[in-house]
Amino acid sequence: MAHSMNSSPINQQLSQQNKAIALRFAKAGWGTQANWQQVWDEMMAPDVVQHFNDFPDAVVGLDANKAFNQDLFTGFPQLKNTIENVVAEDDVVIYRSTLEGKQSGPFLGIPATNKTVKVNDFTMLKIKDGKINEWWYTTNLLSVMQQLGLAPDA
Amino acid sequence: MAHSMNSSPINQQLSQQNKAIALRFAKAGWGTQANWQQVWDEMMAPDVVQHFNDFPDAVVGLDANKAFNQDLFTGFPQLKNTIENVVAEDDVVIYRSTLEGKQSGPFLGIPATNKTVKVNDFTMLKIKDGKINEWWYTTNLLSVMQQLGLAPDA
Repeated sequence: MAHSMNSSPINQQLSQQNKAIALRFAKAGWGTQANWQQVWDEMMAPDVVQHFNDFPDAVVGLDANKAFNQDLFTGFPQLKNTIENVVAEDDVVIYRSTLEGKQSGPFLGIPATNKTVKVNDFTMLKIKDGKINEWWYTTNLLSVMQQLGLAPDA
Repeated sequence: MAHSMNSSPINQQLSQQNKAIALRFAKAGWGTQANWQQVWDEMMAPDVVQHFNDFPDAVVGLDANKAFNQDLFTGFPQLKNTIENVVAEDDVVIYRSTLEGKQSGPFLGIPATNKTVKVNDFTMLKIKDGKINEWWYTTNLLSVMQQLGLAPDA
Protein backbone atom coordinates (compact mmCIF):
# COMPACT_ATOMS: atom_id res chain seq x y z
CA MET A 1 0.00 0.00 0.00
CA ALA A 2 1.61 3.27 -1.10
CA HIS A 3 2.33 5.73 1.66
CA SER A 4 0.58 8.45 -0.34
CA MET A 5 -2.76 6.69 0.23
CA ASN A 6 -2.55 7.39 3.97
CA SER A 7 -3.90 10.59 5.45
CA SER A 8 -1.31 12.96 6.89
CA PRO A 9 -1.26 13.41 10.69
CA ILE A 10 -2.76 16.89 10.19
CA ASN A 11 -5.61 15.44 8.11
CA GLN A 12 -6.10 12.74 10.70
CA GLN A 13 -6.44 15.26 13.50
CA LEU A 14 -8.89 17.23 11.34
CA SER A 15 -10.98 14.14 10.70
CA GLN A 16 -11.19 13.45 14.44
CA GLN A 17 -12.30 17.03 15.09
CA ASN A 18 -14.90 16.61 12.34
CA LYS A 19 -16.11 13.39 13.95
CA ALA A 20 -16.67 15.27 17.21
CA ILE A 21 -18.65 17.89 15.25
CA ALA A 22 -20.79 15.17 13.68
CA LEU A 23 -21.50 13.53 17.04
CA ARG A 24 -22.52 16.84 18.58
CA PHE A 25 -24.77 17.58 15.60
CA ALA A 26 -26.35 14.12 15.74
CA LYS A 27 -26.99 14.34 19.49
CA ALA A 28 -27.54 17.98 20.56
CA GLY A 29 -28.79 19.11 17.16
CA TRP A 30 -31.47 16.49 16.91
CA GLY A 31 -35.04 17.77 16.69
CA THR A 32 -36.18 16.33 20.00
CA GLN A 33 -33.59 18.44 21.86
CA ALA A 34 -34.87 21.76 23.24
CA ASN A 35 -32.14 23.90 21.69
CA TRP A 36 -31.63 22.16 18.35
CA GLN A 37 -32.11 25.33 16.31
CA GLN A 38 -29.44 27.18 18.32
CA VAL A 39 -27.09 24.23 17.75
CA TRP A 40 -27.74 24.43 14.02
CA ASP A 41 -27.04 28.20 14.08
CA GLU A 42 -23.67 27.47 15.69
CA MET A 43 -22.67 24.44 13.63
CA MET A 44 -23.85 25.18 10.08
CA ALA A 45 -22.46 27.54 7.46
CA PRO A 46 -24.97 30.24 6.42
CA ASP A 47 -25.04 28.85 2.86
CA VAL A 48 -25.26 25.16 3.91
CA VAL A 49 -26.77 22.83 1.29
CA GLN A 50 -28.79 19.71 2.17
CA HIS A 51 -29.47 16.79 -0.21
CA PHE A 52 -32.46 15.01 1.34
CA ASN A 53 -33.37 11.59 0.03
CA ASP A 54 -33.22 12.18 -3.72
CA PHE A 55 -35.62 15.11 -3.50
CA PRO A 56 -35.18 16.93 -6.83
CA ASP A 57 -34.23 20.27 -5.21
CA ALA A 58 -31.46 20.75 -2.65
CA VAL A 59 -32.34 22.70 0.51
CA VAL A 60 -30.12 25.82 0.36
CA GLY A 61 -29.23 28.08 3.28
CA LEU A 62 -29.39 27.79 7.06
CA ASP A 63 -32.91 29.22 7.40
CA ALA A 64 -34.34 26.90 4.75
CA ASN A 65 -32.59 23.93 6.39
CA LYS A 66 -34.07 24.76 9.78
CA ALA A 67 -37.56 25.24 8.33
CA PHE A 68 -37.37 21.98 6.35
CA ASN A 69 -36.30 19.97 9.39
CA GLN A 70 -38.78 21.71 11.68
CA ASP A 71 -41.46 20.24 9.41
CA LEU A 72 -39.91 16.74 9.57
CA PHE A 73 -39.59 16.85 13.37
CA THR A 74 -43.26 17.91 13.74
CA GLY A 75 -44.27 14.47 12.51
CA PHE A 76 -42.05 12.61 14.98
CA PRO A 77 -41.57 14.82 18.05
CA GLN A 78 -40.16 11.97 20.17
CA LEU A 79 -37.95 10.35 17.53
CA LYS A 80 -35.10 8.41 19.17
CA ASN A 81 -31.80 8.64 17.30
CA THR A 82 -29.16 5.97 18.04
CA ILE A 83 -25.73 6.45 16.46
CA GLU A 84 -24.49 3.04 15.28
CA ASN A 85 -21.27 3.89 13.40
CA VAL A 86 -19.24 7.02 12.66
CA VAL A 87 -16.43 7.15 10.10
CA ALA A 88 -14.39 10.28 9.38
CA GLU A 89 -11.70 11.06 6.83
CA ASP A 90 -10.35 14.44 5.77
CA ASP A 91 -13.34 16.82 5.43
CA VAL A 92 -16.04 14.11 5.30
CA VAL A 93 -17.90 12.35 8.13
CA ILE A 94 -20.50 9.62 7.51
CA TYR A 95 -22.62 8.13 10.27
CA ARG A 96 -25.25 5.44 10.34
CA SER A 97 -28.04 5.69 12.86
CA THR A 98 -31.26 3.96 13.81
CA LEU A 99 -34.40 6.05 14.20
CA GLU A 100 -37.45 5.01 16.16
CA GLY A 101 -40.55 7.02 16.96
CA LYS A 102 -44.29 7.50 16.69
CA GLN A 103 -45.77 9.62 13.89
CA SER A 104 -47.94 11.82 16.08
CA GLY A 105 -47.98 14.82 13.73
CA PRO A 106 -48.07 15.56 9.99
CA PHE A 107 -45.14 14.15 7.99
CA LEU A 108 -44.52 14.92 4.30
CA GLY A 109 -48.19 15.82 3.91
CA ILE A 110 -49.46 12.73 5.74
CA PRO A 111 -51.74 13.32 8.77
CA ALA A 112 -50.73 11.68 12.07
CA THR A 113 -51.12 7.89 12.05
CA ASN A 114 -49.84 7.36 15.64
CA LYS A 115 -47.93 4.34 14.32
CA THR A 116 -44.35 3.61 15.35
CA VAL A 117 -41.57 3.49 12.76
CA LYS A 118 -38.04 2.11 13.01
CA VAL A 119 -35.53 2.66 10.20
CA ASN A 120 -31.82 2.88 9.47
CA ASP A 121 -30.35 5.96 7.87
CA PHE A 122 -27.05 7.42 6.71
CA THR A 123 -25.93 11.04 7.08
CA MET A 124 -22.88 12.46 5.34
CA LEU A 125 -21.44 15.83 6.36
CA LYS A 126 -18.83 17.90 4.54
CA ILE A 127 -17.15 20.23 6.99
CA LYS A 128 -15.32 23.42 6.05
CA ASP A 129 -13.67 25.77 8.56
CA GLY A 130 -15.36 23.88 11.40
CA LYS A 131 -18.89 24.31 9.99
CA ILE A 132 -21.24 21.88 8.26
CA ASN A 133 -21.09 23.13 4.71
CA GLU A 134 -23.01 20.47 2.75
CA TRP A 135 -24.86 17.35 3.84
CA TRP A 136 -26.65 14.30 2.50
CA TYR A 137 -29.36 12.34 4.26
CA THR A 138 -30.72 9.00 3.03
CA THR A 139 -33.26 6.66 4.56
CA ASN A 140 -35.69 4.26 2.93
CA LEU A 141 -38.93 6.26 2.93
CA LEU A 142 -40.74 3.29 1.37
CA SER A 143 -40.12 1.39 4.61
CA VAL A 144 -41.41 4.41 6.55
CA MET A 145 -44.59 4.43 4.45
CA GLN A 146 -45.00 0.64 4.85
CA GLN A 147 -44.65 0.89 8.62
CA LEU A 148 -47.19 3.73 8.67
CA GLY A 149 -49.58 1.45 6.75
CA LEU A 150 -49.51 3.74 3.69
CA ALA A 151 -47.76 1.45 1.19
CA PRO A 152 -48.03 -2.30 0.54
CA ASP A 153 -45.16 -4.48 1.80
CA ALA A 154 -42.55 -5.40 -0.81
CA MET B 1 -8.07 16.75 20.77
CA ALA B 2 -6.68 13.83 22.78
CA HIS B 3 -4.11 11.70 20.99
CA SER B 4 -6.05 8.58 21.97
CA MET B 5 -8.85 9.61 19.58
CA ASN B 6 -6.53 9.18 16.59
CA SER B 7 -6.18 5.85 14.81
CA SER B 8 -2.82 4.14 15.16
CA PRO B 9 -0.63 3.93 12.03
CA ILE B 10 -1.41 0.19 11.85
CA ASN B 11 -5.16 0.89 11.95
CA GLN B 12 -4.70 3.60 9.35
CA GLN B 13 -2.93 1.23 6.97
CA LEU B 14 -5.70 -1.31 7.57
CA SER B 15 -8.38 1.24 6.80
CA GLN B 16 -6.66 2.10 3.51
CA GLN B 17 -6.49 -1.58 2.58
CA ASN B 18 -10.19 -1.86 3.44
CA LYS B 19 -10.94 1.14 1.24
CA ALA B 20 -9.23 -0.61 -1.67
CA ILE B 21 -11.38 -3.70 -0.95
CA ALA B 22 -14.55 -1.54 -0.97
CA LEU B 23 -13.63 0.13 -4.26
CA ARG B 24 -12.93 -3.23 -5.92
CA PHE B 25 -16.25 -4.59 -4.61
CA ALA B 26 -18.15 -1.50 -5.81
CA LYS B 27 -16.58 -1.64 -9.27
CA ALA B 28 -15.68 -5.22 -10.24
CA GLY B 29 -18.34 -6.80 -8.03
CA TRP B 30 -21.19 -4.80 -9.46
CA GLY B 31 -23.98 -6.76 -11.17
CA THR B 32 -23.36 -5.39 -14.63
CA GLN B 33 -19.81 -6.82 -14.63
CA ALA B 34 -19.43 -10.22 -16.27
CA ASN B 35 -17.63 -11.88 -13.36
CA TRP B 36 -19.40 -10.26 -10.39
CA GLN B 37 -20.27 -13.60 -8.76
CA GLN B 38 -16.64 -14.75 -8.88
CA VAL B 39 -15.62 -11.42 -7.28
CA TRP B 40 -18.16 -11.98 -4.51
CA ASP B 41 -16.79 -15.50 -3.94
CA GLU B 42 -13.32 -14.02 -3.49
CA MET B 43 -14.24 -11.01 -1.41
CA MET B 44 -16.99 -12.16 0.96
CA ALA B 45 -16.83 -14.35 4.04
CA PRO B 46 -18.90 -17.57 3.70
CA ASP B 47 -21.18 -16.43 6.55
CA VAL B 48 -21.53 -12.81 5.33
CA VAL B 49 -24.65 -10.98 6.56
CA GLN B 50 -26.44 -8.27 4.54
CA HIS B 51 -28.87 -5.70 5.97
CA PHE B 52 -30.80 -4.45 2.95
CA ASN B 53 -32.95 -1.37 3.33
CA ASP B 54 -34.78 -2.15 6.57
CA PHE B 55 -36.01 -5.49 5.26
CA PRO B 56 -37.09 -7.38 8.39
CA ASP B 57 -34.79 -10.35 7.76
CA ALA B 58 -31.04 -10.13 7.16
CA VAL B 59 -29.64 -12.00 4.15
CA VAL B 60 -27.29 -14.61 5.67
CA GLY B 61 -24.52 -16.48 3.88
CA LEU B 62 -22.64 -16.00 0.61
CA ASP B 63 -25.03 -18.08 -1.53
CA ALA B 64 -28.10 -16.25 -0.22
CA ASN B 65 -26.38 -12.90 -0.81
CA LYS B 66 -25.55 -13.80 -4.40
CA ALA B 67 -29.09 -15.06 -5.07
CA PHE B 68 -30.67 -11.95 -3.52
CA ASN B 69 -28.54 -9.59 -5.59
CA GLN B 70 -28.94 -11.64 -8.76
CA ASP B 71 -32.67 -10.88 -8.41
CA LEU B 72 -32.04 -7.15 -7.93
CA PHE B 73 -29.68 -6.96 -10.91
CA THR B 74 -32.25 -8.70 -13.15
CA GLY B 75 -34.43 -5.59 -12.90
CA PHE B 76 -31.64 -3.19 -13.86
CA PRO B 77 -29.13 -5.08 -16.03
CA GLN B 78 -27.37 -1.87 -17.21
CA LEU B 79 -27.35 0.00 -13.89
CA LYS B 80 -24.53 2.55 -13.81
CA ASN B 81 -22.80 2.88 -10.43
CA THR B 82 -20.79 6.06 -9.76
CA ILE B 83 -18.78 6.17 -6.53
CA GLU B 84 -19.09 9.69 -5.08
CA ASN B 85 -17.33 9.38 -1.67
CA VAL B 86 -15.46 6.68 0.24
CA VAL B 87 -14.54 6.96 3.91
CA ALA B 88 -12.65 4.25 5.82
CA GLU B 89 -11.69 3.88 9.46
CA ASP B 90 -10.50 0.78 11.29
CA ASP B 91 -12.64 -2.17 10.09
CA VAL B 92 -15.46 -0.07 8.55
CA VAL B 93 -15.80 1.45 5.07
CA ILE B 94 -18.78 3.56 4.00
CA TYR B 95 -19.29 4.77 0.45
CA ARG B 96 -21.92 6.89 -1.22
CA SER B 97 -22.77 6.23 -4.83
CA THR B 98 -25.21 7.35 -7.48
CA LEU B 99 -27.14 4.70 -9.41
CA GLU B 100 -28.76 5.24 -12.78
CA GLY B 101 -30.44 2.71 -15.02
CA LYS B 102 -33.55 1.47 -16.81
CA GLN B 103 -35.85 -1.07 -15.17
CA SER B 104 -36.00 -3.52 -18.07
CA GLY B 105 -36.71 -6.59 -15.93
CA PRO B 106 -38.68 -7.56 -12.81
CA PHE B 107 -37.66 -5.73 -9.62
CA LEU B 108 -39.04 -6.57 -6.16
CA GLY B 109 -42.06 -8.20 -7.77
CA ILE B 110 -42.70 -5.32 -10.20
CA PRO B 111 -42.76 -6.17 -13.93
CA ALA B 112 -40.47 -4.18 -16.24
CA THR B 113 -41.54 -0.52 -16.65
CA ASN B 114 -38.67 0.46 -18.99
CA LYS B 115 -38.43 3.70 -17.02
CA THR B 116 -35.09 5.19 -15.97
CA VAL B 117 -34.27 5.71 -12.30
CA LYS B 118 -31.53 7.77 -10.64
CA VAL B 119 -30.92 7.56 -6.88
CA ASN B 120 -28.25 8.02 -4.24
CA ASP B 121 -27.31 5.21 -1.90
CA PHE B 122 -24.99 4.37 0.97
CA THR B 123 -23.15 1.08 1.47
CA MET B 124 -21.33 0.18 4.69
CA LEU B 125 -18.93 -2.76 4.82
CA LYS B 126 -17.40 -4.37 7.89
CA ILE B 127 -14.22 -6.17 6.89
CA LYS B 128 -12.61 -8.98 8.86
CA ASP B 129 -9.42 -10.80 7.83
CA GLY B 130 -9.61 -9.12 4.42
CA LYS B 131 -13.17 -10.33 3.68
CA ILE B 132 -16.52 -8.53 3.71
CA ASN B 133 -18.11 -9.93 6.84
CA GLU B 134 -21.26 -7.83 7.25
CA TRP B 135 -22.80 -5.08 5.15
CA TRP B 136 -25.59 -2.54 5.13
CA TYR B 137 -27.23 -1.06 2.05
CA THR B 138 -29.67 1.87 2.13
CA THR B 139 -31.36 3.74 -0.68
CA ASN B 140 -34.70 5.53 -0.80
CA LEU B 141 -36.94 2.92 -2.45
CA LEU B 142 -39.87 5.39 -2.32
CA SER B 143 -37.96 7.56 -4.80
CA VAL B 144 -37.35 4.46 -6.95
CA MET B 145 -41.09 3.69 -6.93
CA GLN B 146 -41.95 7.35 -7.72
CA GLN B 147 -39.55 7.40 -10.67
CA LEU B 148 -41.03 4.12 -11.93
CA GLY B 149 -44.49 5.76 -11.78
CA LEU B 150 -45.66 3.36 -9.05
CA ALA B 151 -46.05 5.80 -6.13
CA PRO B 152 -47.35 9.38 -5.97
CA ASP B 153 -44.74 12.15 -5.59
CA ALA B 154 -44.21 13.43 -2.04
